[in-house]
Amino acid sequence: MARPNTGIWLIGARGGVAATTIVGLAALKKDLIAPTGLVSALPQFAGLPFAAWGDFLVGGHEIREARLSGEAMGLATESRAIDAGLIVQVEAELDEIDQRIRPGTVHKVGPTIAAMASTRVPSEEPPREAIARLKNDVSRFAESHALEHVIVVNVASTEPPVDPSRLPPAWTELKRTLDRPDDCLLPASSLYAIAALELGCSYINFTPSLGSSPAAIDELARTCGARHMGCDGKTGETLMKSVLAPMFQHRNLRVMSWVGHNIFGNMDGRVLNDPANKQTKVASKDHLLAEILGYRPQTLVSIEYIESLGDWKTAWDHIHFTGFLGTPMTLQFIWQGCDSLLAAPLVLDLVRFTDLARRRGETGLLRFLASFFKSPYGVSEHSFVRQFQALESWAERVES
Amino acid sequence: MARPNTGIWLIGARGGVAATTIVGLAALKKDLIAPTGLVSALPQFAGLPFAAWGDFLVGGHEIREARLSGEAMGLATESRAIDAGLIVQVEAELDEIDQRIRPGTVHKVGPTIAAMASTRVPSEEPPREAIARLKNDVSRFAESHALEHVIVVNVASTEPPVDPSRLPPAWTELKRTLDRPDDCLLPASSLYAIAALELGCSYINFTPSLGSSPAAIDELARTCGARHMGCDGKTGETLMKSVLAPMFQHRNLRVMSWVGHNIFGNMDGRVLNDPANKQTKVASKDHLLAEILGYRPQTLVSIEYIESLGDWKTAWDHIHFTGFLGTPMTLQFIWQGCDSLLAAPLVLDLVRFTDLARRRGETGLLRFLASFFKSPYGVSEHSFVRQFQALESWAERVES
Amino acid sequence: MARPNTGIWLIGARGGVAATTIVGLAALKKDLIAPTGLVSALPQFAGLPFAAWGDFLVGGHEIREARLSGEAMGLATESRAIDAGLIVQVEAELDEIDQRIRPGTVHKVGPTIAAMASTRVPSEEPPREAIARLKNDVSRFAESHALEHVIVVNVASTEPPVDPSRLPPAWTELKRTLDRPDDCLLPASSLYAIAALELGCSYINFTPSLGSSPAAIDELARTCGARHMGCDGKTGETLMKSVLAPMFQHRNLRVMSWVGHNIFGNMDGRVLNDPANKQTKVASKDHLLAEILGYRPQTLVSIEYIESLGDWKTAWDHIHFTGFLGTPMTLQFIWQGCDSLLAAPLVLDLVRFTDLARRRGETGLLRFLASFFKSPYGVSEHSFVRQFQALESWAERVES
Amino acid sequence: MARPNTGIWLIGARGGVAATTIVGLAALKKDLIAPTGLVSALPQFAGLPFAAWGDFLVGGHEIREARLSGEAMGLATESRAIDAGLIVQVEAELDEIDQRIRPGTVHKVGPTIAAMASTRVPSEEPPREAIARLKNDVSRFAESHALEHVIVVNVASTEPPVDPSRLPPAWTELKRTLDRPDDCLLPASSLYAIAALELGCSYINFTPSLGSSPAAIDELARTCGARHMGCDGKTGETLMKSVLAPMFQHRNLRVMSWVGHNIFGNMDGRVLNDPANKQTKVASKDHLLAEILGYRPQTLVSIEYIESLGDWKTAWDHIHFTGFLGTPMTLQFIWQGCDSLLAAPLVLDLVRFTDLARRRGETGLLRFLASFFKSPYGVSEHSFVRQFQALESWAERVES
Repeated sequence: MARPNTGIWLIGARGGVAATTIVGLAALKKDLIAPTGLVSALPQFAGLPFAAWGDFLVGGHEIREARLSGEAMGLATESRAIDAGLIVQVEAELDEIDQRIRPGTVHKVGPTIAAMASTRVPSEEPPREAIARLKNDVSRFAESHALEHVIVVNVASTEPPVDPSRLPPAWTELKRTLDRPDDCLLPASSLYAIAALELGCSYINFTPSLGSSPAAIDELARTCGARHMGCDGKTGETLMKSVLAPMFQHRNLRVMSWVGHNIFGNMDGRVLNDPANKQTKVASKDHLLAEILGYRPQTLVSIEYIESLGDWKTAWDHIHFTGFLGTPMTLQFIWQGCDSLLAAPLVLDLVRFTDLARRRGETGLLRFLASFFKSPYGVSEHSFVRQFQALESWAERVES
Repeated sequence: MARPNTGIWLIGARGGVAATTIVGLAALKKDLIAPTGLVSALPQFAGLPFAAWGDFLVGGHEIREARLSGEAMGLATESRAIDAGLIVQVEAELDEIDQRIRPGTVHKVGPTIAAMASTRVPSEEPPREAIARLKNDVSRFAESHALEHVIVVNVASTEPPVDPSRLPPAWTELKRTLDRPDDCLLPASSLYAIAALELGCSYINFTPSLGSSPAAIDELARTCGARHMGCDGKTGETLMKSVLAPMFQHRNLRVMSWVGHNIFGNMDGRVLNDPANKQTKVASKDHLLAEILGYRPQTLVSIEYIESLGDWKTAWDHIHFTGFLGTPMTLQFIWQGCDSLLAAPLVLDLVRFTDLARRRGETGLLRFLASFFKSPYGVSEHSFVRQFQALESWAERVES
Repeated sequence: MARPNTGIWLIGARGGVAATTIVGLAALKKDLIAPTGLVSALPQFAGLPFAAWGDFLVGGHEIREARLSGEAMGLATESRAIDAGLIVQVEAELDEIDQRIRPGTVHKVGPTIAAMASTRVPSEEPPREAIARLKNDVSRFAESHALEHVIVVNVASTEPPVDPSRLPPAWTELKRTLDRPDDCLLPASSLYAIAALELGCSYINFTPSLGSSPAAIDELARTCGARHMGCDGKTGETLMKSVLAPMFQHRNLRVMSWVGHNIFGNMDGRVLNDPANKQTKVASKDHLLAEILGYRPQTLVSIEYIESLGDWKTAWDHIHFTGFLGTPMTLQFIWQGCDSLLAAPLVLDLVRFTDLARRRGETGLLRFLASFFKSPYGVSEHSFVRQFQALESWAERVES
Repeated sequence: MARPNTGIWLIGARGGVAATTIVGLAALKKDLIAPTGLVSALPQFAGLPFAAWGDFLVGGHEIREARLSGEAMGLATESRAIDAGLIVQVEAELDEIDQRIRPGTVHKVGPTIAAMASTRVPSEEPPREAIARLKNDVSRFAESHALEHVIVVNVASTEPPVDPSRLPPAWTELKRTLDRPDDCLLPASSLYAIAALELGCSYINFTPSLGSSPAAIDELARTCGARHMGCDGKTGETLMKSVLAPMFQHRNLRVMSWVGHNIFGNMDGRVLNDPANKQTKVASKDHLLAEILGYRPQTLVSIEYIESLGDWKTAWDHIHFTGFLGTPMTLQFIWQGCDSLLAAPLVLDLVRFTDLARRRGETGLLRFLASFFKSPYGVSEHSFVRQFQALESWAERVES
């Protein structure tokens, strides 16, 4: 096997999604698992010159003290989500990666997340210093392993919302706020994004946190010849919305109300139990309905932390719609999926597609990745199949 | 209001779908209802020169004795599917249409359907004579109302299956079997199709019965400059399959099993309680999964007659799929819709689109209507959104 | 038919439950409906000397301006819950009863309910004056119709919670607070109770509001030789809990979490959208689990106002439990019932049983009625079947 | 730990229920698990002098070749139903028990079960010889381990139905048919029962097979001073029916239809895929509704083999009922439980209760165990809570 030449740098590197991504990558390298759940492994993309799994090396930032293999094992023993035997087979790789995980930042992450931070994480670090430290971590990772390129993927917990209208639209102005800690509204996810993009790395925001969504940060990406995309991986209930809402639209069945109750018990659930953090998530899960339907039905989205469920996200959606002659009808669905296991393959897919885009010289916003996200940056199409067609079209252009 | 110039000739004209179609058309003419459920009323098709509702006049064939308004009222009182007040407002129109309904044929419809026939329906009529009689009915309808064009839509009960490989592929040969009653395998739905196409009428098969699917009948349609399409209106559970299966495919989530249990209590349900008739329906509901997914998961489709449900078709689908790292997950949905109310607007849509295609000179198979059918003739694409895109593309061509 | 001799005085007399109760009683008098949903019509109670339906006469208090028949018709047209034809048949009775409905009180009902009150309802009436006025209304009703006995049933909207520990336990002390409006914590439901009991009437609290639950009011009932019971009619989700929780207990299947999401769109739903009012309801729906199970699983109860559902209360409950060898399993149920239609027959049952208890000379708390309530006064048994057995035993004693 | 003095002899000793029972008993002996799922471990029965887990020793009959620990491990790896780590901890005990499992009989078990038999099972053995051989196996087990008493529990696959009216009602007559193989209608489950009872052992029929249900075999039990009970362990969907149907009855809510679809993929499912075997099961799951409700709603019960589900029995039940004023309403539930894990603790409970009954000198039918069975012998009460009360009453009598 050739030496890895591409880095995957995970923000939230010991969380459930990161741990599952790392276990999965290690298992794929050793050919222990089938590529189920990987979009990049579909027949549609068989002709694309993706990097091999062995080409990737993982590092990351994390604010908690924990052992990566312990986190992974919790998904087996507490959540019954992963087979324990598989984790045992890749434990050595996990321990090795653990050594490459550095303390992250808790800048404006809100009290619920901040309370989880270890003492190794600076608590009052000014934003510019934080960025410098984060850049240094990523640079040293790239240099010590002679990596051509690093893709930073944010899979950390959801931060409280930031009002984007309060942010200056130009990078030169936004940059100035980094020196005035009191004026700087940017949360950790955006500091990681700035660090990555200034280094020319790629940045993928898999969460609904602010990340690289501000116009000023997109400007930075283009200036640096870097690339970025987000936000909020579309894994379960919202994926369902993005396939069902087009059905109702195309059949002119009028949705009167769409209620979605989500219950789960992992770390993400614990953080989303904080109303501020939850608000960011709910907004991301809710807006697409009106955009697909063309009108605004009554909607309700709840996310509740039910400890016994562990990583098993269960969603009940009740859709009340009017049919012909005004008759009300109902569709209900119940989704029982493992959150981390639905997210992790998409992280690997995003890394593979982003790496390929970089090799083709693409910079700025990677809009063709819209189908992976609940709230795709710069894309107004929310029908899943049509978003997926954009990915297929991109692949055809790459192949031709 | 202008005089009607286009006929809608319904096969099974006093069944639930027909009664609902007729109530809906009358209500649309009087502007009593919103166009909810009508695909042709979508913003996407606002630029198409559809005929006005007042342009259509309804007649049909039926084998049972019944009063149309009584059938419609049963949907209000027994099924609580239609508002009784609406039916009262259009009762006069229903009684008028009742006068234009003629006895149909029970040729090879199987014992369950045949047992419902009134004594006015000839029981031992040779196929060629039946076709001549049916043609005469449609011709007289067209002539006495000076109609430019008649669209025949089959909304009768599902017939037992016919093995298409036993039918001669050329029209000249198939035609010859019409004179040899013992050799003629064609069921009523195909005799109606032949009658319609020989007259140059359009024929739409909204059921899974054989209808115009034989190659020889398609040849007849092209020879006569007529047009046809089918089969089996996609209204509920199968519509869901055609939007959900692409989601599983596009995310590489491997479907292990897909179980669908359907319960309902209308006339259609009573006929489908006959295992022979049910077989035709189940085959039509089941095949598209393998075609979308690219492999064959274990599937189970049941359709059971539960009298208390009336027209309320309830479907429970349980989809068991494998995600990343081989972890099994589950999606379940429960669909509670009124069968006739989901079908009727599609019948009106098909009539409008077919009428427009005729005015544009299109003949033969109307493949652009695939999204309306469970088993679209001549179309292998089963993803609902992609089928719908074909309709959108057709509309764009019409408008340009 | 004999002249009525027993009054039913409904608090909230133009709400959904009251309107349905009144429609049902009128329909029963005219023999228009089967006794479905009436516990008192069960074979188990066939030997009890219940009053005939014609023995009852209805009046009541209400704070809103509305027409009773209009409220009832809304349940037909907006909610599709009652057959409109039935309402037409009893419209005259509804209009007659409308004349016997008097303005109620809004004392400490919270701002959401108070905002619905008509200008005929005094807004700053001291509690003692309110009680005097309410008593006067009930007395005049009884006198002008020569009624032997009046049963007051509270079916008004749920009030915000009151901390019972802040109420004096003796009636002489509680009574004194009625003269000091600033010290009087009693909400309307309790003023109605005091008015009823001081008159020797029976009082039934069908809501979770405070009503006659304070010890001091129970003392009043006993002193006056009156009788009372409550609280909170057990109609849907909680009824299910009281039959399912014993199953889990008796099989030693450990409930880890029980999540119940309720959505509906009637007036009750609108009031419960106020967090204060909702708190009273949620507490009543939640406590019985721990009492049946013997331990406290994680529970979550939500009640959300979804306008399109009208009177159709839909509840999704997700019960996560541990089985043998520690394996987690799941039971989910979906309840789709009309709230008012589930409540109304129980109101009639409570009236019949209470009337019979009065004729037998029973006073004080009517504990044998526990099975009708979510939070039965003075009863710790919460298993529905065991509560029902208490009703059966009482009936056996009556018969013997 | 004292030497075991009571034998548990399992029929179908390497099936899923038996394997889980054995794993569970071994784990209880080693104190590796909590007593979740064990009725006998409830506080209600804390005062009963049950035998200790260490008092029991397991042996059994089986027709298949398999390794017990392999069967158990399949429940971990294929079904994800048991924790693999637990099985590893008791593997030695499983291997030891494997040595005590003897070839069973396939007399009249139907072709589906017979096809699974190993060559060690005699294929044409006359019934009397089979009984003699089975008795010899059990006797040698009892003698070589100096057991005071053996309880035979049938947990083998469901046999095709036998018409009980074709069996002679007296033991002397039934016994005679054992010598005339052509006349003997008794299936294996009854031969095991006769063998057990003639030895004075207890016999528990956990399946819907004929077992000890014939009057003649009950006579045998009483003559021999032995005891028996059955049939068909009530573990999931039917348990739900026995708690929900009383709710509908007690509230006079009229059940119009009750549809239950069951899907699962274990060995039991494979056998029930044979229509003959399935018929026995469906009858046992269906009859209690009419007995509880007092009338016969339309019912439908399906059991289908869906391989991917393994031991995870999933049931969807749709209950359509009429409420007040004739309004139809719906309750649906979805049960997701591991069949073997729900059954196994009940097997251990039945053994403990039966052993206690024997020590108290009870013989004949053990009616107080009705709550454990779908079709309890000699008991017409089908309400689960009332059946459970019979168990509680028995326990009170034992304690006093």
